[in-house]
Amino acid sequence: MDKYADRCGIFGMYDNNGFHTSHLIYYGLFSMQHRGTEAAGICVNDSQGIFEYVKDAGLVTEVFDDMKLDKLQGHAGIGHVLRFEGPDPSQNAQPIVIRYTKGRMALAMNGGLKNIEEIRHELELEGAVFQTMEAAEVVSVLISRARNKYSTIEEAIASIMPVLKGGYAMVVMTPRKVIGVRDPFGIRPLSLGKLDHSWFLSSETVAFDELQIERVRDVRPGEIVVINADGPRSLQAVPSEEKRVCIYEYVYYAHAASLIDGQEVYKARYEMGRNLAKEAPVKADAVIWVPDSGLAAACGYSEQLGIPMLDAFAKNKYYGNNLVKPEGLLFDHRIHMKLSVIRSQVEGKDIVVIDDSMVHGTTAAILVSLLRRAGARSVHLRIASAQIRHRCDYGAAVPAEEKLALAQADKEEVREKTGADSLEFLSREGMEKACSDADGGFCCACFDGNYPV
Amino acid sequence: MDKYADRCGIFGMYDNNGFHTSHLIYYGLFSMQHRGTEAAGICVNDSQGIFEYVKDAGLVTEVFDDMKLDKLQGHAGIGHVLRFEGPDPSQNAQPIVIRYTKGRMALAMNGGLKNIEEIRHELELEGAVFQTMEAAEVVSVLISRARNKYSTIEEAIASIMPVLKGGYAMVVMTPRKVIGVRDPFGIRPLSLGKLDHSWFLSSETVAFDELQIERVRDVRPGEIVVINADGPRSLQAVPSEEKRVCIYEYVYYAHAASLIDGQEVYKARYEMGRNLAKEAPVKADAVIWVPDSGLAAACGYSEQLGIPMLDAFAKNKYYGNNLVKPEGLLFDHRIHMKLSVIRSQVEGKDIVVIDDSMVHGTTAAILVSLLRRAGARSVHLRIASAQIRHRCDYGAAVPAEEKLALAQADKEEVREKTGADSLEFLSREGMEKACSDADGGFCCACFDGNYPV
Amino acid sequence: MDKYADRCGIFGMYDNNGFHTSHLIYYGLFSMQHRGTEAAGICVNDSQGIFEYVKDAGLVTEVFDDMKLDKLQGHAGIGHVLRFEGPDPSQNAQPIVIRYTKGRMALAMNGGLKNIEEIRHELELEGAVFQTMEAAEVVSVLISRARNKYSTIEEAIASIMPVLKGGYAMVVMTPRKVIGVRDPFGIRPLSLGKLDHSWFLSSETVAFDELQIERVRDVRPGEIVVINADGPRSLQAVPSEEKRVCIYEYVYYAHAASLIDGQEVYKARYEMGRNLAKEAPVKADAVIWVPDSGLAAACGYSEQLGIPMLDAFAKNKYYGNNLVKPEGLLFDHRIHMKLSVIRSQVEGKDIVVIDDSMVHGTTAAILVSLLRRAGARSVHLRIASAQIRHRCDYGAAVPAEEKLALAQADKEEVREKTGADSLEFLSREGMEKACSDADGGFCCACFDGNYPV
Amino acid sequence: MDKYADRCGIFGMYDNNGFHTSHLIYYGLFSMQHRGTEAAGICVNDSQGIFEYVKDAGLVTEVFDDMKLDKLQGHAGIGHVLRFEGPDPSQNAQPIVIRYTKGRMALAMNGGLKNIEEIRHELELEGAVFQTMEAAEVVSVLISRARNKYSTIEEAIASIMPVLKGGYAMVVMTPRKVIGVRDPFGIRPLSLGKLDHSWFLSSETVAFDELQIERVRDVRPGEIVVINADGPRSLQAVPSEEKRVCIYEYVYYAHAASLIDGQEVYKARYEMGRNLAKEAPVKADAVIWVPDSGLAAACGYSEQLGIPMLDAFAKNKYYGNNLVKPEGLLFDHRIHMKLSVIRSQVEGKDIVVIDDSMVHGTTAAILVSLLRRAGARSVHLRIASAQIRHRCDYGAAVPAEEKLALAQADKEEVREKTGADSLEFLSREGMEKACSDADGGFCCACFDGNYPV
Repeated sequence: MDKYADRCGIFGMYDNNGFHTSHLIYYGLFSMQHRGTEAAGICVNDSQGIFEYVKDAGLVTEVFDDMKLDKLQGHAGIGHVLRFEGPDPSQNAQPIVIRYTKGRMALAMNGGLKNIEEIRHELELEGAVFQTMEAAEVVSVLISRARNKYSTIEEAIASIMPVLKGGYAMVVMTPRKVIGVRDPFGIRPLSLGKLDHSWFLSSETVAFDELQIERVRDVRPGEIVVINADGPRSLQAVPSEEKRVCIYEYVYYAHAASLIDGQEVYKARYEMGRNLAKEAPVKADAVIWVPDSGLAAACGYSEQLGIPMLDAFAKNKYYGNNLVKPEGLLFDHRIHMKLSVIRSQVEGKDIVVIDDSMVHGTTAAILVSLLRRAGARSVHLRIASAQIRHRCDYGAAVPAEEKLALAQADKEEVREKTGADSLEFLSREGMEKACSDADGGFCCACFDGNYPV
Repeated sequence: MDKYADRCGIFGMYDNNGFHTSHLIYYGLFSMQHRGTEAAGICVNDSQGIFEYVKDAGLVTEVFDDMKLDKLQGHAGIGHVLRFEGPDPSQNAQPIVIRYTKGRMALAMNGGLKNIEEIRHELELEGAVFQTMEAAEVVSVLISRARNKYSTIEEAIASIMPVLKGGYAMVVMTPRKVIGVRDPFGIRPLSLGKLDHSWFLSSETVAFDELQIERVRDVRPGEIVVINADGPRSLQAVPSEEKRVCIYEYVYYAHAASLIDGQEVYKARYEMGRNLAKEAPVKADAVIWVPDSGLAAACGYSEQLGIPMLDAFAKNKYYGNNLVKPEGLLFDHRIHMKLSVIRSQVEGKDIVVIDDSMVHGTTAAILVSLLRRAGARSVHLRIASAQIRHRCDYGAAVPAEEKLALAQADKEEVREKTGADSLEFLSREGMEKACSDADGGFCCACFDGNYPV
Repeated sequence: MDKYADRCGIFGMYDNNGFHTSHLIYYGLFSMQHRGTEAAGICVNDSQGIFEYVKDAGLVTEVFDDMKLDKLQGHAGIGHVLRFEGPDPSQNAQPIVIRYTKGRMALAMNGGLKNIEEIRHELELEGAVFQTMEAAEVVSVLISRARNKYSTIEEAIASIMPVLKGGYAMVVMTPRKVIGVRDPFGIRPLSLGKLDHSWFLSSETVAFDELQIERVRDVRPGEIVVINADGPRSLQAVPSEEKRVCIYEYVYYAHAASLIDGQEVYKARYEMGRNLAKEAPVKADAVIWVPDSGLAAACGYSEQLGIPMLDAFAKNKYYGNNLVKPEGLLFDHRIHMKLSVIRSQVEGKDIVVIDDSMVHGTTAAILVSLLRRAGARSVHLRIASAQIRHRCDYGAAVPAEEKLALAQADKEEVREKTGADSLEFLSREGMEKACSDADGGFCCACFDGNYPV
Repeated sequence: MDKYADRCGIFGMYDNNGFHTSHLIYYGLFSMQHRGTEAAGICVNDSQGIFEYVKDAGLVTEVFDDMKLDKLQGHAGIGHVLRFEGPDPSQNAQPIVIRYTKGRMALAMNGGLKNIEEIRHELELEGAVFQTMEAAEVVSVLISRARNKYSTIEEAIASIMPVLKGGYAMVVMTPRKVIGVRDPFGIRPLSLGKLDHSWFLSSETVAFDELQIERVRDVRPGEIVVINADGPRSLQAVPSEEKRVCIYEYVYYAHAASLIDGQEVYKARYEMGRNLAKEAPVKADAVIWVPDSGLAAACGYSEQLGIPMLDAFAKNKYYGNNLVKPEGLLFDHRIHMKLSVIRSQVEGKDIVVIDDSMVHGTTAAILVSLLRRAGARSVHLRIASAQIRHRCDYGAAVPAEEKLALAQADKEEVREKTGADSLEFLSREGMEKACSDADGGFCCACFDGNYPV
């Protein structure tokens, strides 16, 4: 619950079946809502090359309704869900839709570029102006400029990829194509799917599953997939580096049902729980979990040690942003409103609490105190990933190191902060071993400081 | 998921501390949102005996905002969340607020009366007119008429209780009192709480826990609790019958953290799962559950048999009413949008699926087919309550018997309908045994046809 | 602008043509929006005798949209626009829809009853309870009780009319009829219309004109018009008194295009202007008017004296309730935001300002000061009705006498308050003479204290 | 009513008094709402050079509320109301807010550039991309590029003005300045105002009057006014051409109370009416007008010929966009809903109808037919401006010539289309004479094809 914010999801499609393009993109985005809840947008290309779009602050279900989707008619389209922490997400909603010498272009992107400010500054010196804070806008300017020197949009994209230092994925739409791009290390995921004669690109395969789209394969690091009426073609834009997919996608970001680079996310989480049980067992009466992020690992932990599971936290499923804040009341009702402890399950027991990861430790501290108040004899925290010690340059919303309260703290300090009787993290090796189905290596920079780019 | 709808929650308070009355009622109702999501309302009594109210269709968080709560100033108040299946819930929102000879009266009620139509008809013959479909309006007329013959409101209420045939609880507010009433069999729950010098009434104790209100006791069957500035007084309105609290409150209705008549709801569900394991064990690789209604029983079932739990269903937590309906698209996307199956957890396994109860069997059928499609070797359904065979007269939204598809079906027919490899229900004895902390008996009429009233 | 608030409009229809009933009622109400802007409601009777309704606070165009109107299917219906000054108009929206011994009844009413509190109190003593502040609710209870003693609803209505002391009109809908009722003095207007085989009732004929419905006639004082599938029948419920239609309908309430009891409203206003010119001429350079209420009388005044008209006040037509209030700013921007003075038209001129009536005189005072600031040499106020000196018992929102600032003031005091160089009112005779097409007498009680009832 | 759409208004201020900047801009825009109703926006500069803005589709009162204005804190700001005919005005809302080498810049602009597409294309060739259809975005790119070559923003603006071929006005905000710019011919108006130590720029002086801001003077053709903490400085950016203010501002665009280049708008309209009476008198019983656009000219026409005025059209003031459309009903209710004819004023009379201008003639045709149906003996149309025969290049929303139905038609054809008994337009000379207070010449290009640029 108290963790890295997720950061943006993208979806694209080229329809050859007469499907309701905007509706399919809508459901695709909806199934990836967990990747970004601040804004959403869809841009479609009608047959005449006119690009219509709707984008605004809010959830997918808030930004769109039947009428708006019906107005977005087209045979191709791209969409985006935004994770954004500033005051006005609507001003940064994607896709970015521009007009340039070759007509229209739309672009949706996720991930992060460590040199975004340098690139922006250089472009400004050449006369570019910017209206958003999004890297996507900067990249759209880079591409449109390169386009004048190359005969195809994909060559233009390939030509600028060496400039982009970071981990990202993007979908680009032009009057006749929909294009998917994945960074040279494959840090951010992107998959290709197919339904009958239509082709799809998505950050996560869960979107394919929801729509019964067949997963074809992951886009390769440094690859550009160009889809037009004839189907997809592939271009290795930059030499593929050794794959280094973000391990935090498996830990927390991605949907449990998604398959990234051969590794099912749920299975990774479950195995992280088992590995955690092997590395840091504890004698306890019950395994409980932070709902819902710790559940998969708790199943693995429980099974490995044979300790029964107990769902000791009951969530109020109506809890949301429009709950009136109890300012000025006497007590802190907030956390209660979201979560109740089932006293009978906790009283007099030794409890292991499993969570998938820990950023600030504040949620853990509150939960530990709730459990103690409910009569737990002892509370042991087990975190199914390593301790986060470094910033992320590639799009994970990890705070800068100086703000990362726990970055420098040793384990004992953290334990003390949470108030738990004991605290253990899973080792980096334990994490990686849990992802043994994956067909490449991992970026664990936020855990170990080893930055691929 | 596919089950009896829950039916209404009530909350009342008399403040002697200078608390924000309307805010506390708001949070109390919010924590009981699961009891009714169609409409919500709050009525407060300012010091001059003027009753201000807001009620409308929607969730608690939709009907109220900061501004509306701030306008509802008063030292006493009552609130209601409505479960309603008709086309326009706003027309039936409670509290009912009336003016009569003695001034103002507000009333909020839950439960059901089997003779409501007769009472209404008799009142109509005497010249009464009605503007809603709610029993609460009828009861408010009965009370106001009786009030002319008795010197106190509580005597008036006591005088009409023998007329009301059913299971119910209500809170009544008059210019100087807030009153709680529970039916003679105690079929519907009602609890008394205290915070400093202020007093509270609530359908469920979870509302007290959220607000750190001390649970004092359950209101007794047939009791009237009258709260005024001096605190509560008790009146045994009608001779208390043997207590027969609705067992379905433990099975599904109530919040897991609530304590009803001495029995914690979660514990009852957990024990139902254990009893189910004893009565109907199965050799399987994993215990999974229908999220989230089957989870507590699944924990018990798993622990009893030592079969590991697997959270094979991943819910989309953004799923809600404003999701655009995929009408006209090619496939049934609806269920997918709400729930995904984690294929790796299911493939090639023998699975037990636990749910708390079964009304129509349609959800079960869909889940079974999803599991089969994901590669489950066998799927065994275990229901942690008995088979529902009868209508409810006391406020549970059980369909009339002729519409209760499964009422007459034998177990094999039901199994066939769901497509499961095997199906077992918990026995009535197994249910009752699971509630052994309760200080009375149970109404199991929807299971066994034995109606207390 | 600063005047008696208008009070409620009613509309009813019985369709034999397959028209969109709810849509026609909607447009009928919309064309009478000036009679009440606080709430609106429509109730229709589908063929099975089920009454569906929508009513809420707001303008007609705010309460209804396409979807809501489409849901209101029926062959008969009634509607209401409410003028209400309390805090929550939604709680008093009409029609009142009740269930009683004979099934459903809906009722919409305008006007006022001086003995409403006595009637309500008596009913309460007999056990009635009330949920609104509306006379309509009280009358619906009276009718439903009487209905048990009479074999038809119209007889029941006739039987209670002697009890109702006041000026009113109402439309009543039962499962097989739509009924129009006008008080014995005809104080409030009500007209009957016809379009092909369908029949209509409306407070004002402007609603008929909009919908190209043929005006058949005014309902007579004390008459009940009963419409069913066979068309209308008439019943003289109480002996018709000498007609005394509210003269303020001609002065301000009604729409200029309406025809009430034979007298066109616009023509009455124009003639009031002419009569005012004859009674109180002034030597001036220009006739201006308070927009838009004084325009018709200004035309008459200008024509009579041959003084040219000047539209010196320019209104901001976007001015409305959602304009942010300039609290805390340095100056009173409010009046400016609504109205600008055209300086060139005013500077150095002697000006006559015409308005239709005066309640508080505050608006007049502001306008006089705006004109002086713009350089007017002299400002003469001429009011095209008499001085209001008494409360209204029959539904005009005239303040109680003690709050009627000008009630006791003599003309010179009022002139001083407004800051005008001179001030004259039209005489009562001048008003009545202007309505010479009317087929009866007038209620001028608020002007002369002569109450018909 | 059926006429050239108005096109955009701009407002800017530099506060040295501690005023509520965003509130004052809000009221300024609100008073110019008639210049553009599709979108509105405000951008403010807080003391740290951070630019906050809100812009969206809708009226000023719809886009902003108290909370949004309160968040817009700053000592300087600019605002815009947009007139736009495309499908999604929100995508073109101004101000345009950009980041470039020198930090932030915001720009709001009205008017039109005939070479906008050429400029845009040239910039695209140099690598620029665009996200809106607005000239303002293009100009902001031009300025930001020029800024690199000049040491001040005003020099940069001056350097690009020769490129802009058209009629326009703009306000530009940089971290330390607010700048007003008017095109070399002064086709679009712009005024400078002062309140205490604070300075203001506005398309129309009505905004100043509303806020009791002192009008200082009109910005001169080709002038740049630079306001900073020390007050305004002037720069004659390009040699001032002979002034050619758009005469259509006087005919229809501007608010009647505004003063443009020395000429009050109302007075111009009144005199156009008088001149029309001299050029094209008619023997008639009454002068009526198209509400509200024809009123001022009708006053002049009536006074000149001594024919009395009659307000024969009654508008429904609640008419607006949210009125449900009567599609599928039997008759055309639309025009009725907006406007009623007062039959008594029209029947058997010879009528002159005055309007300010005529674009398509469709509204005129409907009004003529309404008057005939109401019994008018004859209907004479008099238009207080010349016949529109040419497109506008400078921001008036005149249709292209080929779509301008009346452009090629001779007067008799137009008369026939409207169904009037006679039709006359005011001569160009008559229009210009009516504006004799103006301190320069006029652009009458849409009337005579004589384009200044």
